[in-house]
Amino acid sequence: MSLLVQKYGGTSVGSLDRIHHVAQKIIETRQNGHDVVVVVSAMSGETNRLVGLIESLVDNNPDPREYSVVVSTGEMVSMALLAMCLSAQGFPARSYTGAQAQIFTENKCMKARIERIETHPIKQALQEGIIPIVAGFQGVDSYGNITTLGRGGSDTTAVALAASLAADECQIYTDVDGVYTADPRVVPEARQLTHITFEEMLELASLGAKVLQKRSVELIGKYKVPLRVLSSFHDGPGTLITYEEVAMEHPLVSGIAFNRSEAKLSIIGVPDQAGIAAKILGPIGAGNIDVDMIVQNKINNDLTDLSFTVGREDYQKAVVILEQVAKTLGAKGISSDAKIAKISLVGVGMRSHSGVAQKMFEVLGDAGINIQLIATSEIKISVIVDEKYLELGVRALHAAFGLDKEANEEFDPKM
Amino acid sequence: MSLLVQKYGGTSVGSLDRIHHVAQKIIETRQNGHDVVVVVSAMSGETNRLVGLIESLVDNNPDPREYSVVVSTGEMVSMALLAMCLSAQGFPARSYTGAQAQIFTENKCMKARIERIETHPIKQALQEGIIPIVAGFQGVDSYGNITTLGRGGSDTTAVALAASLAADECQIYTDVDGVYTADPRVVPEARQLTHITFEEMLELASLGAKVLQKRSVELIGKYKVPLRVLSSFHDGPGTLITYEEVAMEHPLVSGIAFNRSEAKLSIIGVPDQAGIAAKILGPIGAGNIDVDMIVQNKINNDLTDLSFTVGREDYQKAVVILEQVAKTLGAKGISSDAKIAKISLVGVGMRSHSGVAQKMFEVLGDAGINIQLIATSEIKISVIVDEKYLELGVRALHAAFGLDKEANEEFDPKM
Repeated sequence: MSLLVQKYGGTSVGSLDRIHHVAQKIIETRQNGHDVVVVVSAMSGETNRLVGLIESLVDNNPDPREYSVVVSTGEMVSMALLAMCLSAQGFPARSYTGAQAQIFTENKCMKARIERIETHPIKQALQEGIIPIVAGFQGVDSYGNITTLGRGGSDTTAVALAASLAADECQIYTDVDGVYTADPRVVPEARQLTHITFEEMLELASLGAKVLQKRSVELIGKYKVPLRVLSSFHDGPGTLITYEEVAMEHPLVSGIAFNRSEAKLSIIGVPDQAGIAAKILGPIGAGNIDVDMIVQNKINNDLTDLSFTVGREDYQKAVVILEQVAKTLGAKGISSDAKIAKISLVGVGMRSHSGVAQKMFEVLGDAGINIQLIATSEIKISVIVDEKYLELGVRALHAAFGLDKEANEEFDPKM
Repeated sequence: MSLLVQKYGGTSVGSLDRIHHVAQKIIETRQNGHDVVVVVSAMSGETNRLVGLIESLVDNNPDPREYSVVVSTGEMVSMALLAMCLSAQGFPARSYTGAQAQIFTENKCMKARIERIETHPIKQALQEGIIPIVAGFQGVDSYGNITTLGRGGSDTTAVALAASLAADECQIYTDVDGVYTADPRVVPEARQLTHITFEEMLELASLGAKVLQKRSVELIGKYKVPLRVLSSFHDGPGTLITYEEVAMEHPLVSGIAFNRSEAKLSIIGVPDQAGIAAKILGPIGAGNIDVDMIVQNKINNDLTDLSFTVGREDYQKAVVILEQVAKTLGAKGISSDAKIAKISLVGVGMRSHSGVAQKMFEVLGDAGINIQLIATSEIKISVIVDEKYLELGVRALHAAFGLDKEANEEFDPKM
C-alpha cells in the first residue's frame, strides 16, 4: 500500500460531470489498495469569475487580504463538491481549507510561500479511513488570515503535502498526458517522455513549458518528491520526474522548449569600463523589467556591445529606457527586435557528452537559420532566432536529435 | 458614540453597485461618530446557485458538512468584496469568516445554533479603527468544521454579535422599510410601525411574516437586544423592536398577519377517551408533519371531533394518515380542506383589554365570513377562514381596528 497525493487541476474538475469522473479515479486508487490525499483547484473559469468581480468593484490595488478571501472560495466549492460526491458513493471524504489542513504560509496574503504544514489533521483522517480533499492554492498565516500561493499554486500545495506526508508519489492530473519531447502542436512527431529528471523539468518550466509551475518544480527538487504528471482525461503512465541518483541512463537531449514571448535589445559601441553591464541593465531592472538572456561582446579594447532579451510585454518600455542609457553612456546606438523566438535544448546528458551545441548550430545552419544570441547552462542550450524560423528550427532539431525515436536512450551520443 | 451592529441582507448586497451603496451607508455611520460591526449575507441568488450545484451533483442527502462548506462561500465573497470596497475608500475594513470571528456553534453542520462568540478578534479590530465585516449564517464547531445556521441565519449572526458585544443597537437592513400593520400588497392602507414589542414580533415571525427569521427574534428576546429593521434602499427610521419594560403605551392590535400555507383536517365522531388527541396526532407527528392549530370539540359524552391544520405541502400525506387513524379508532369519518387561510391579530394590548376577540368575530361576521377554527394566545387571535375571503377579511379588520390611523395609540380601546 502506497500513500499517493493526487492533484486535480481546474479543467479536471471543470464541470459536475468532470467531478464525478475525478471521484471515480480516486475510488479506483482506493480500490487498488492505496491511501490517497487529494488536492483540487477551483473549477475552471471560477477563479477568473471571482477576479472579475473584484476588478469590477475596485479600480486598482484591491486589498490583498480580501482579494485572497474572495479567490480562495473557488477551491472551497470544488473540494466540498468532490468530497460529497465521494461520500455519496460510500467512500467517506472530508474537505480541508488551507487553514483546516494547517498549511501555514508567510504573513503575506498573496503569492505567499508555504512555511510548514502540520500534518496531524490529514494523518488522522487517513487513519480513520477518510479521504482528505485539500483546497489547493491556499494557506493560512500566523494571524489566521487566509492566504493564497499565486496562480498555479495548487501544484505547490500538492508537492508540499507530498513532502510533508513523505508520500510515495505526487500525481499531478492535468489536461496534458505528460511531458513531451516538444510541443505536439508544433512537432507532430513529439513523443511523451516516460521519465525526465528534475533538473530538466526545472529548465523546461523556466523556459515556459506549461506542464508544471516553476515554483512547484523547485519545491519537488528540494524535497525529492517523486512526481508524476498524468492526464485526468486519458489513462496512461504519464511522465515521472526522477532524481539524478535514481536515473541510470540519460538521453543526450530530453526535450525541446521554445517561446515567442521575448524581445531582443542591443546597445552598440558602448565605451567599455568595469561594471558597464550593471550600468546598462540597472535602469532596466529599476523599471521592473525582468531580463532573461544576456550576451556581452567586446568589439575592441575600448568598445563593447551588449544584447539581452526581455518579456515582449515590456519591450516598448525597455526600448525607451535603453535609448536614455545609450545617451548617458555615450554609446553609438541601440537596436531592437520584437520578432524573435527562443529555442532551447534541454538534457542532463549534455553534462557528460560534448558536441551537442556544435550539432545544434550545424542543424540550424543547414536549415538556413541564423542564430542571433546563444546562452548555455550545464544542461541547456538556448538560441535566439528570427521568429519566422521557430517551427522549422524546432522540427529540424527534434529530428536531428532523434527525439521521435521510441527509445531515445538508444540514440548514439557520438552523433 | 454608539456601537452598532448592522446587517445587510442578500438583496442589499445583490450587485456590485449595491455593495458600493452599502459601503456608503457604513461610511456615513462612521462619519456620524459610531463604531460599527457589519454582518452580510451572500449576494442574492448566490446561495441558490451553490445549492443548485450541490443538487445537480448529488441526488439526495448531500453530506451536511460539505454542504455547509459550499454554501458558506457565498458570504465569504460578499464580506470580502465589501471590505475591499471600504478599504479602497480610506475606511480600513477587515472580513471575518465564522471561524475567524470565533462564532462557535453546536457540533452540527447545518441549522446549527450559536453557543458562544469569543469577541476579542472583533473588539481588537474596533480598537484599531478597523471596520469588521462578518460573514452571516456561518460559524465553526469545536472541531474546526465550518457550520451554517440555516437560511436567514445572517439575522441570527447579527443579533448574537450585538448581544455578545453589548451593542447599543442591532440594525437589520433589508428590502422592506420596516414592520407594517399588514402586508401592504393586500392592504394598501397598511402603515409602517415605528415600534413593536418583542413578543408581537415573535408572534408575527411565527405566523410567517417575512421580516425577521423566528430564531433571530427568539434570540433578541433572550438578550434584550434593541433591534431596528430598516430599508437599505430608502432612508427612514424603520421599526424598532422594544421590550415591555420600556414600552409605555400599547395599541390594542399592532398588526395583522396572514397566510395561505396551511390546510385543515378534521376527524369526526371519535369515541372519546383519555388521551384521544395524542392517539390522533401521534401518527401525524410520526409522519414528520408539523401540526399548527388544534381544536377539540366534544359533541356529547361519548363522541368528540378534533380539527387541526398542517402545512399545505403535507396535506395529501396527512389525509392518508388520518384516514387510517379514523379506521383504527372507529371514528365516523374525516373531512379536509386545503383552501383555507389563517388571519391573525397580534398585539400586547390584548393582555389588558378584553373584547378584541369579540370585535374580530363581529367584523368578520358583518363581512359575511364564516370562521372555521379559532385559536388564541395571550397576545394573538388566529382564525381559519375560507381562502377566498382572505383579502376581504384582512382589509375589514385593518380598518375596524384603526390600523391605518397615523397614531394607533389614540384608538379607543373601548371600541
